[in-house]
Amino acid sequence: MSQSTIRIDTTGQGLYEFTRDATRFVAANGADAGLLTLFVRHTSCSLLIQENADPDVRRDLDSFFRRLAPPSDDPVMRWVTHRTEGPDDMPAHIKAALTAVSLSIPVMDGRLALGTWQGIYLFEHRDRPHRREIVLHLGR
Amino acid sequence: MSQSTIRIDTTGQGLYEFTRDATRFVAANGADAGLLTLFVRHTSCSLLIQENADPDVRRDLDSFFRRLAPPSDDPVMRWVTHRTEGPDDMPAHIKAALTAVSLSIPVMDGRLALGTWQGIYLFEHRDRPHRREIVLHLGR
Amino acid sequence: MSQSTIRIDTTGQGLYEFTRDATRFVAANGADAGLLTLFVRHTSCSLLIQENADPDVRRDLDSFFRRLAPPSDDPVMRWVTHRTEGPDDMPAHIKAALTAVSLSIPVMDGRLALGTWQGIYLFEHRDRPHRREIVLHLGR
Repeated sequence: MSQSTIRIDTTGQGLYEFTRDATRFVAANGADAGLLTLFVRHTSCSLLIQENADPDVRRDLDSFFRRLAPPSDDPVMRWVTHRTEGPDDMPAHIKAALTAVSLSIPVMDGRLALGTWQGIYLFEHRDRPHRREIVLHLGR
Repeated sequence: MSQSTIRIDTTGQGLYEFTRDATRFVAANGADAGLLTLFVRHTSCSLLIQENADPDVRRDLDSFFRRLAPPSDDPVMRWVTHRTEGPDDMPAHIKAALTAVSLSIPVMDGRLALGTWQGIYLFEHRDRPHRREIVLHLGR
Repeated sequence: MSQSTIRIDTTGQGLYEFTRDATRFVAANGADAGLLTLFVRHTSCSLLIQENADPDVRRDLDSFFRRLAPPSDDPVMRWVTHRTEGPDDMPAHIKAALTAVSLSIPVMDGRLALGTWQGIYLFEHRDRPHRREIVLHLGR
């Protein structure tokens, strides 16, 4: 069993890939088989495994979530009560609830069993810069 | 490895915090490092890690999901076919599908690696009282 | 620890149950207690634990997601930029992002700790036939 924490500095809403950090952590460990679990220590960003080929996919995913949960100063969000931290805060919690706080990926033959097109992303839901922490746990 | 089942009695839709039960289970085990996995044994409630500070966040989360999947006697839900268990049943399955049935949280230095504002919640989607079971698995 | 890969041939959007494959894998292993993790190696299908009793629930779940993210040739999806792989592709990525890429289910007394009504499904989001791979990892 092995654990590590990585930090990602975000500069606004969107997807930040960290597949390489996860791959490196697994390789450094030398385990042939196991299970990598990722856990994000925040409630206004989340984890996502998505296509790492066409960047339009990431842009469209971001657009979809912005349309589903617009900033709370948008008239359709008039019902929101939690407003003290800015119009991007409550939608951030909503988007985090709709996506993942933890993910587990098997390690086979010493490598993450990701599919050909799968990349691992931190999904930032806040506008301003944030330092985000993700815990990596390589277990059995 | 250690396992336990906790039961939560719910009294209608909303978020029920059980961070303390999870924390106690981990502490009772005395493991320095590991991985806690939570699994809910139902299809009309789910698990959520969300902000435990301002209760408005929980209220707004609940409102968002009610707006996204209203009771099936609402005109916008006319397309629903599964109606035998009441108007809150099909939206309950939808909300459960959109959130988590299992979650994994690393244990570091003998404690759950939750962020400062993260609480663990059972998200009840049914109106009437239910006894809900969550399996706790502390592994490596 | 034990690992396996199962393949499911899909023939269009919808839910494909594979509870039996997971149950068999756990039984073949003979472990009394553990944790089964499922991981899907794709970004346009996903995993779902849902009611295995009334098939209307699955049909309604499918309808809900189609309404939330319609094909990109629908006028409400005019904002989509990723269109090269057909009108069902971008909604497929969206639906995958809203559901699970990995799930973990405890094994207790030699059996998966699923609730009475819980079935395990592959949720296919593409129209054309696909061969899908799911990695099963039975750990501690």
